[in-house]
Amino acid sequence: MASKEIFIAVIGAGGVGKAFLSQLEGLSKRLSANASSPKLSLILVSRSTKTLYSPQYKALPFLNLATSLADSTNKPLSLTEIIDFLAAAPAKVVLVDNTSSQDVADSYPQVLSRGISIVTPNKKAFSGSYKLWQDIFSSAASSGAKVYHESSVGAGLPVISTLKDLVETGDEVTRIEGVFSGTMSFLFNSFAPTEGSGGKWSAEVKKAKELGYTEPDPRDDLNGLDVARKLTILARLAGLQVESPTSFPVQSLIPKALESVGSGEEFMQRLPEFDSEMEETKAAAEKEGKVVRFVGSIDVAKKEVKVGLEKFDRSHPIAALKGSDNIISFYTKRYGANALIIQGAGAGGDVTAMGVTADLIKVLGQL
Amino acid sequence: MASKEIFIAVIGAGGVGKAFLSQLEGLSKRLSANASSPKLSLILVSRSTKTLYSPQYKALPFLNLATSLADSTNKPLSLTEIIDFLAAAPAKVVLVDNTSSQDVADSYPQVLSRGISIVTPNKKAFSGSYKLWQDIFSSAASSGAKVYHESSVGAGLPVISTLKDLVETGDEVTRIEGVFSGTMSFLFNSFAPTEGSGGKWSAEVKKAKELGYTEPDPRDDLNGLDVARKLTILARLAGLQVESPTSFPVQSLIPKALESVGSGEEFMQRLPEFDSEMEETKAAAEKEGKVVRFVGSIDVAKKEVKVGLEKFDRSHPIAALKGSDNIISFYTKRYGANALIIQGAGAGGDVTAMGVTADLIKVLGQL
Repeated sequence: MASKEIFIAVIGAGGVGKAFLSQLEGLSKRLSANASSPKLSLILVSRSTKTLYSPQYKALPFLNLATSLADSTNKPLSLTEIIDFLAAAPAKVVLVDNTSSQDVADSYPQVLSRGISIVTPNKKAFSGSYKLWQDIFSSAASSGAKVYHESSVGAGLPVISTLKDLVETGDEVTRIEGVFSGTMSFLFNSFAPTEGSGGKWSAEVKKAKELGYTEPDPRDDLNGLDVARKLTILARLAGLQVESPTSFPVQSLIPKALESVGSGEEFMQRLPEFDSEMEETKAAAEKEGKVVRFVGSIDVAKKEVKVGLEKFDRSHPIAALKGSDNIISFYTKRYGANALIIQGAGAGGDVTAMGVTADLIKVLGQL
Repeated sequence: MASKEIFIAVIGAGGVGKAFLSQLEGLSKRLSANASSPKLSLILVSRSTKTLYSPQYKALPFLNLATSLADSTNKPLSLTEIIDFLAAAPAKVVLVDNTSSQDVADSYPQVLSRGISIVTPNKKAFSGSYKLWQDIFSSAASSGAKVYHESSVGAGLPVISTLKDLVETGDEVTRIEGVFSGTMSFLFNSFAPTEGSGGKWSAEVKKAKELGYTEPDPRDDLNGLDVARKLTILARLAGLQVESPTSFPVQSLIPKALESVGSGEEFMQRLPEFDSEMEETKAAAEKEGKVVRFVGSIDVAKKEVKVGLEKFDRSHPIAALKGSDNIISFYTKRYGANALIIQGAGAGGDVTAMGVTADLIKVLGQL
């Protein structure tokens, strides 16, 4: 029996996108060595102004793919054109969205309703309006298309899959708590270490920026929205109808006075003026023998979601975190007093792409 | 469209088996509320001397299942008869093996080759001879039947699935290390706590036995074989051809002189004679500012697997473990210096059954 062909389309060719294409090449080779595995054909790769595809749905070669995409003379396709192209394909299609685009996210209900499965690390689709969330999953349910998004929280760490397993097997998740941002993890592990005294807040932010651990404008990390988006996703999976990532308390670490300064540079220049505030917060925690960390938590029974600074004993797993690691603790009825804990790198192209590739493998098994 | 019917057969109705049947009832109800989900029909339940089934493959009611099984007047079926009965079923079948039986494990290649999928927490199948391991996966590959065994290591913790994801997405697993036994975890967390001095070794073993944390004869935990079986499974998944759980160094904590005493009771009576040995081990670790723990580790590059006592800094996640929790650290090329860590309860009926039910859900999606 000839093996089934499955078409893969990839939007986004940034850090995650490139790492994913490399993993896809490896996966495709390994599957082709096994006669009973499906045959993967990459039929479209797209980034902002370029689209590489064969109108006849012929598989694109992986060799020199980046160059081929850059040199592509294909007329770039709009999102609508891409969806039409994929919906008309003569085999099942998985769309891999490696962008963080709200426009692409908004198209998911349409993509899924046309029978195209989706795997993605794009948080926007699952942390936008609750209506979009509902539309996505109802479209998937009626068409039978699959949608997986492990890397939308904690990159490749098995966070979404574990929460789904807990819920689907009938456990009662009572509380979820953790450090969900690699940037915040790095900042607080350096600023308020469990041993030693740590640096000044503005100096740690500067260091994190120089190491590439922050967004170009660090305010995009410090405003807490990235963590709020992840909490929104987990809370919804745990059964809470969270309206949006701004519908619960989120503590911003951007001093009020610096919220509206024009540039990230000016923000960085003036940040030292506010070091004393953060120093006070640190000292208050130290007085109790604790350290301060930027965490997100969900109390399922109370339907409370919040993001912000909290104090932890030095021996607490959240305090003892290293580097830029994430940690996620699931408290459930079955697991009792000691949480089910998952910990490790929660950002980076390779590990984010790993979550996407693992999701793709799961979808392939179901098509 | 009428939903697809899938038959479920369950062998074993002990602690895990009962918890699983309860979760299966919940799952079956939830799926029946969704028109596009498969319809689950429990067609056989079996324990040592009793088999409950309908020769016409009619679904057994969940109500009073335990009583019905105890009162069953069905002629008890042999394993071969069960397999014949399932292979002749007019729909796809998943066999759930909730025993720890070597006989049942030995039948997996035959079960799978007849197209019956398997989900199980039974370690014996995957940690026996390497030939049995190969036969299981080659039978599954040729028939297309699925075999899942998440709960064979760390109960419901996502250990097997995470290791598979790492390997299948092309990461390079370099080292796996952890505490894989709830009993050993409890014993060493009490005997050599990170704070305070802990009790005498024999007293801690006695306490663990009284709390039901050990096997009826504690030597079945102290010999290290349970941990060795789990390491065998993980090492094989990581690509090492481990011949058997006795083909690598496993440190037994049973004093030589007590290996052959007749009963568990006599063993417990004489164990205090050997407290000084364990006390010395603890003191040696304390001299270095460390604590002693019973761990398993796999060095993939060196092809080394070992199980036994090791010393850890008090701040190490393995030292800081609580209660009877397990912890498993995966060191990989992508995750770098900081491991991907999974931690939580690794034993108990409910959480073990959860791993089985979650596996069943994954298999259902693929049938």
